[in-house]
Amino acid sequence: MASALKDVFLLLVCVCVCFCNEQEEERGNAYMLFAGKSKGTPWPYPKTMTSSKVQVMVDKDAFVYSSSEECAILTEAFVRYDKIIFGSRSPSLMFKPWREFRATRDRLRESSVVSSLIVTFSKCDNSYPSLTSDESYNLAITEDGKATLGATEVWGVLRGLETFSQLVYKTSDGSYVVNVTSIDDAPRFKHRGLLLDTSRHYLSLNVLKDNLDVMAQNKYNVFHWHIVDDQSFPYESYTFPSMSRMGAYDPFKFVYTPNDVREIVEYARLRGIRVVPEFDTPGHTQSWGKGIKDLLTKCYTAGKLNGDFGPINPVPNTTYTFLQQFFNEIAQVFPDKYVHLGGDEVSFDCWESNPDIVTFMTDMGFGKDYSKLEGYYMQKLLDMVSGLKKSYIIWQEVIDNGAKVANNTVIEVWKDKYQEELSRITGLGYKTILASPWYLDYISYGTDWKNYYTPDPLGFNGTEAQKELVMGGETCLWGEYVDDTNLISRLWPRASAVAERLWSPADVNDVSEAAKRIEEHRCRLISRGYPAEPINGPGVCESLYLYHA
Amino acid sequence: MASALKDVFLLLVCVCVCFCNEQEEERGNAYMLFAGKSKGTPWPYPKTMTSSKVQVMVDKDAFVYSSSEECAILTEAFVRYDKIIFGSRSPSLMFKPWREFRATRDRLRESSVVSSLIVTFSKCDNSYPSLTSDESYNLAITEDGKATLGATEVWGVLRGLETFSQLVYKTSDGSYVVNVTSIDDAPRFKHRGLLLDTSRHYLSLNVLKDNLDVMAQNKYNVFHWHIVDDQSFPYESYTFPSMSRMGAYDPFKFVYTPNDVREIVEYARLRGIRVVPEFDTPGHTQSWGKGIKDLLTKCYTAGKLNGDFGPINPVPNTTYTFLQQFFNEIAQVFPDKYVHLGGDEVSFDCWESNPDIVTFMTDMGFGKDYSKLEGYYMQKLLDMVSGLKKSYIIWQEVIDNGAKVANNTVIEVWKDKYQEELSRITGLGYKTILASPWYLDYISYGTDWKNYYTPDPLGFNGTEAQKELVMGGETCLWGEYVDDTNLISRLWPRASAVAERLWSPADVNDVSEAAKRIEEHRCRLISRGYPAEPINGPGVCESLYLYHA
Repeated sequence: MASALKDVFLLLVCVCVCFCNEQEEERGNAYMLFAGKSKGTPWPYPKTMTSSKVQVMVDKDAFVYSSSEECAILTEAFVRYDKIIFGSRSPSLMFKPWREFRATRDRLRESSVVSSLIVTFSKCDNSYPSLTSDESYNLAITEDGKATLGATEVWGVLRGLETFSQLVYKTSDGSYVVNVTSIDDAPRFKHRGLLLDTSRHYLSLNVLKDNLDVMAQNKYNVFHWHIVDDQSFPYESYTFPSMSRMGAYDPFKFVYTPNDVREIVEYARLRGIRVVPEFDTPGHTQSWGKGIKDLLTKCYTAGKLNGDFGPINPVPNTTYTFLQQFFNEIAQVFPDKYVHLGGDEVSFDCWESNPDIVTFMTDMGFGKDYSKLEGYYMQKLLDMVSGLKKSYIIWQEVIDNGAKVANNTVIEVWKDKYQEELSRITGLGYKTILASPWYLDYISYGTDWKNYYTPDPLGFNGTEAQKELVMGGETCLWGEYVDDTNLISRLWPRASAVAERLWSPADVNDVSEAAKRIEEHRCRLISRGYPAEPINGPGVCESLYLYHA
Repeated sequence: MASALKDVFLLLVCVCVCFCNEQEEERGNAYMLFAGKSKGTPWPYPKTMTSSKVQVMVDKDAFVYSSSEECAILTEAFVRYDKIIFGSRSPSLMFKPWREFRATRDRLRESSVVSSLIVTFSKCDNSYPSLTSDESYNLAITEDGKATLGATEVWGVLRGLETFSQLVYKTSDGSYVVNVTSIDDAPRFKHRGLLLDTSRHYLSLNVLKDNLDVMAQNKYNVFHWHIVDDQSFPYESYTFPSMSRMGAYDPFKFVYTPNDVREIVEYARLRGIRVVPEFDTPGHTQSWGKGIKDLLTKCYTAGKLNGDFGPINPVPNTTYTFLQQFFNEIAQVFPDKYVHLGGDEVSFDCWESNPDIVTFMTDMGFGKDYSKLEGYYMQKLLDMVSGLKKSYIIWQEVIDNGAKVANNTVIEVWKDKYQEELSRITGLGYKTILASPWYLDYISYGTDWKNYYTPDPLGFNGTEAQKELVMGGETCLWGEYVDDTNLISRLWPRASAVAERLWSPADVNDVSEAAKRIEEHRCRLISRGYPAEPINGPGVCESLYLYHA
């Protein structure tokens, strides 16, 4: 603890010496708390953690946060976490008279009370989190009531604050306690993403923000925003306003305005979450075609136009002029270094039917291999986006179809047989992220979270060098059967299973041990106001989700 | 319209002659409303309905309800449906100046405006709905702006009000309209139930009430309250308070007090919904045993007590003394004629291990056939409940195991091969309700509602007389993976598919036609404030579900 410590966020200081029980009392009645025995254990589990049964009392009414650096992100975070840990603190509660402590004090043993969290870190970065952000931190709660959180960057402090908020819990008499604990933590993977799809169903800003909150509470750090697709184009472009005007489900109600996007990006930043937008081409673009004339390929049947449209037309120059202008805008609107350029599921039928494209194929010497045409298109697009100083992620088909892409391209693996694909792609020297085992839009009866908990992104045949190319993974919640009515409950705590796989050490993989902690984590999310659904069969949380229609 | 008509609920009368469009304008932009073409079509579909494309305007600001009989249930219903149809009406809106109507009037053709609903019926029954309630009604909206609803009983009026509330819809300019329509409606089946399980997870009164609202909006008429089970005993008995004190997840937070039960029964009654409680014995009773000493069978291993408990012990007299007192209370607390007595999934292992029970088997001459012991227990229980002037429903096993029960017993079929079972049970002369195809706690990806829409309760081999014994069916939402966080979205509109099967004529079974209407119905539920989940893939409703964590 440097002497240069400055208290930047002082609510009230009050240290009192109390006594501490070794363990919370067992309940004598039928209170069947699934999670009862893992109270105050964090999710995802830290890299290393030693925890004693000795509890130290936390003084809610006097609790303060002190930080070695002033940092706007952190000040916001203190306010947020104070509410998460303690709920609303009213001034009158903050000055609770000493005599009211005594009843509690009498059951505590030789210990100080934790009345502050001392935060030290060296780098206040008020810009955006990135792939190279340092999220490591250490956290210690000692028997004499000292709670300290150390990190290099503010992003690590955010992760540590989340952990601290999970360590503190309430006993049956309503006191706040924390076990004597020492944690040294850092993520196993740098890229821990969650994809939401706002095209199949529009999602409100409320839901997107709540989801970012829950992501932060699971130490996810990338919101992969699959913002547009065939079904609708809710992104309101200032360069091409006709795209959402014609392509959104509704041009006013169901769009994301430039201001909405800024709001989401900022909300995410404050929680250490990157926003990686996906503008998937050349397939999945039916909604693009409504606002941009002649962008899509016109399809033919028996030599005649049939009124249908295929993927983006890769032939005319106008296509690339449009893409240049469009991605110029995207590069400015979304500050992250990465943009996701899609490239999946391109159907060649319409291209094959179109005489202009057939001629172009001949001219280019592509023969009948339309994957070469796809590669041609993607290469032009990727070069264009590189020119905007952005890096990109693409779905695996682009590589599967033989396109050559720049070495720093990130390939997202989403199909079955992903172990072979990971071997192959890292063998080619590409970076990769894994999504295949984590399509959470697929549902089935029972404890399906276990199927998401066990797959390991490094569980494939490959050299150490290959494995180092695996940046992480992504949970995908495609939007066919999801909207505001069921998104949060469908996703959580199922997505928590993936969160631990991507954050915690590989050997934190005991399903039955995890079951207790994930159940506690579900109850934690419920007590924080999120409708995290039951995933372990019958049981009960201390607090009920407050449902109101 | 009888001259004895009395206006019991007069907000304001104002009739104005206007002009009416033949069809709502098509939207020119990308507004892709799945349900756009079925607007104002009711779900479940009526017995007979003729509907014209001619729209009549509905005068929101002047709308009144008039009824031939004063009836407290109906007065409540008018208030409820007025809010559903029009939202909040403020006095200032009710006196909208005439000139504001003119813009709308100019687009209407030779028609009056609907400014009242005239309700005639002969029997105001302010007691409870029952299996013999008459829910039929007729409803007519004529070109000259008359809207009339006729029924025999108030229960039919409730169903007709729901239909009327669905016929009225908003056009794109915000006007309320209704198509010229004539409906003669009655349910196909008398028993249209929905089971919720409050034992595996506790459900709040808020959720139970919201679910009753949505049930009424789908013309369900029985709430089968599977209130207790192995996992917890939330029913607070005034005769045996120890049962919930020891058997509930929490004796204070997670119980249904006598007042809570009254509240639910009354809330259901006002919506024409019966509450049939289930107290399942002799199995599924682990939670009962916590509060009632020696009620459950003690299990043995190798001749020694092993600490486990089995089903209710059917041997001692104390068991029957307890049951008599307990069901005395239940008969008073739940006013419905029917009580569900369970009888499913009784495991014989523990009985077989217990020497007292083995001796009893010998004494009774049951040999090794423990289903005879189960039959012995059930028969005593059924006789006891008959003595309380109640009828009962039991699960199919009781009959499958050969017990003889009174002729008016209702058998609920829940296992696979239900067609054979329906043949067999009705062949024995028992009444039956079908649940097998409608276990909605089981989930799978995609448009699974179609699997619930097509099974027909009369689709089995049997005589006309046998088919008349089929009283209806039940949707079951067992509680292993359901609580307040996901109940409404998990259930609706999937349970709407069953609702139409049980209400509408057998030949209303075209899945692709139903798809449009059920989608409109989902959007209707959303606009009414319920988080009904997407079930037909990508799309959008006019209004977004207002999600707030």
